Amino acid sequence: MVAFGGGHGLYASLSALRRVTGELTAVVTVADDGGSSGRLRRELGVLPPGDLRMALAALCGDDDWGQTWSRVVQHRFSGEGELHGHAVGNLLIVALWELLDDPVVGLDWVGRLLGAHGRVLPMASVPIDIEAEVELDGRVTVVRGQVACALTPGNVQAISLVPADPPACPEAVAAVRAADWVVLGPGSWFTSVLPHLKVPRLAEALHDTGARRLVALNLAPQPGETDGFSAEKHLHVLGEHAPGLRIDVVLADHRAVADRDALEKAADAVGARLVLAGVASADGSPRHDPLRLAAVLDEIFRGKR
Amino acid sequence: MVAFGGGHGLYASLSALRRVTGELTAVVTVADDGGSSGRLRRELGVLPPGDLRMALAALCGDDDWGQTWSRVVQHRFSGEGELHGHAVGNLLIVALWELLDDPVVGLDWVGRLLGAHGRVLPMASVPIDIEAEVELDGRVTVVRGQVACALTPGNVQAISLVPADPPACPEAVAAVRAADWVVLGPGSWFTSVLPHLKVPRLAEALHDTGARRLVALNLAPQPGETDGFSAEKHLHVLGEHAPGLRIDVVLADHRAVADRDALEKAADAVGARLVLAGVASADGSPRHDPLRLAAVLDEIFRGKR
Repeated sequence: MVAFGGGHGLYASLSALRRVTGELTAVVTVADDGGSSGRLRRELGVLPPGDLRMALAALCGDDDWGQTWSRVVQHRFSGEGELHGHAVGNLLIVALWELLDDPVVGLDWVGRLLGAHGRVLPMASVPIDIEAEVELDGRVTVVRGQVACALTPGNVQAISLVPADPPACPEAVAAVRAADWVVLGPGSWFTSVLPHLKVPRLAEALHDTGARRLVALNLAPQPGETDGFSAEKHLHVLGEHAPGLRIDVVLADHRAVADRDALEKAADAVGARLVLAGVASADGSPRHDPLRLAAVLDEIFRGKR
Repeated sequence: MVAFGGGHGLYASLSALRRVTGELTAVVTVADDGGSSGRLRRELGVLPPGDLRMALAALCGDDDWGQTWSRVVQHRFSGEGELHGHAVGNLLIVALWELLDDPVVGLDWVGRLLGAHGRVLPMASVPIDIEAEVELDGRVTVVRGQVACALTPGNVQAISLVPADPPACPEAVAAVRAADWVVLGPGSWFTSVLPHLKVPRLAEALHDTGARRLVALNLAPQPGETDGFSAEKHLHVLGEHAPGLRIDVVLADHRAVADRDALEKAADAVGARLVLAGVASADGSPRHDPLRLAAVLDEIFRGKR
């Protein structure tokens, strides 16, 4: 089982997937240029570690050991000085990279520390910048950087990567080729879900794999990035970023779908059947409930839904 | 078994003691104000973690797990920015302190991470400043701070602590009272070995304990701090900082002793017998060889020497 994504969306899918499979690999975007990750990336030239750290934390062991180290890696330093805002896990990951000189080996060590239920890999072996075509007041401009793309007041129309042909992480490519299922989303659509499709070798593996492909749609549009996007619009832009990619299942929360027919048509256009289910948090917030999402995914994977 | 000290000297004694006892507690100075520790202390108001980290690394497990995490905690960040020079373990210790709000519990977690053969405790529960009386060109001045004391061009004559009556770490006091042996030194005499004697409750425990007390002398004077000090001079100043303290064994390397009679007399004055042995590194550098030191300590502890 392979999950594509980044940030809070990937945290949600991993929190569910860890409950339904013993063999889980997260493939994580490496385009962040903000906060602690952005500082580390600029200071040390490393991959931005934040999304990788969050994915590892989502997989941490349930015992006291796993829970404590997960709290440690997620902890951000207080104070007002040079450490302020740095997540401890980001520093730990970067230290392992400096020391072991291999991003995957370093991440595997943090996974072992956390007793992680699965493996976390970067989508590419080099830090990446996202460039977005943004439409604002009838003009299309190019916005560069994940933070800028996520916060733009205009409408994002498409993204590309800088460099345009980054080397994929070989272990991630192999995991996609060996998987039974690949799950894309939920997450920040343009900055966490679609970037994977622009890494040539990874996109190629996703096209070629014998795995089935599931797209888990977001529960709400995201101000800035996908303001005013319908559920079907998410699928349209995904199709535009991965021409010819066949999807097997599109999963959406029924309360997040305004026009079921339009979404069914959009799913059909990429070869997918639509599964509507209650996967949102019971408190009404636009977050996936890990147990509900796990239950639905499990039914889908076992052919019961 | 309890070892008092700090820095490289304590690293040396722990590297030996871990080989001869299954129950080892290091009690570590918390007066550092330089480097990574000094920055963290100033920025976050915490105990300086560096000497604690180094003691933990000295006790790390022998397997791949312990060795790797030990390298990680000892690693210092490269680059030129805000992280430059910070030891990873210092950041990890401080994060655990912020999160768990108890210095001892935090250190125990790092000990568990490293598979440490023993426990590492701070000598006091608050950060301390060392003040030294320094004689230079016939005038006595007061120098404040561990770095300043260690680097002073004058002759250090005595040290005191600020605050003068810091709260001892209760677990350290209990360990001293329950020990069979307490080992003082080797290490920077005024800034790593003698400070413990100025923490009232810890000094009291050291006086009262039923444990035998061993002083391991340095292999060479330390420029700045103990420039020109003979072996016996080390014992004299120790006696001045802990009036009435009885010592059982003084251990010195025979090549580091210029005047054996004078040293024997000084040992006798504090109630100790002198053991001379080859405990220095074979390469002639003024460092203790862990295996040689372990062999001699083991013989002493078992009454064979």
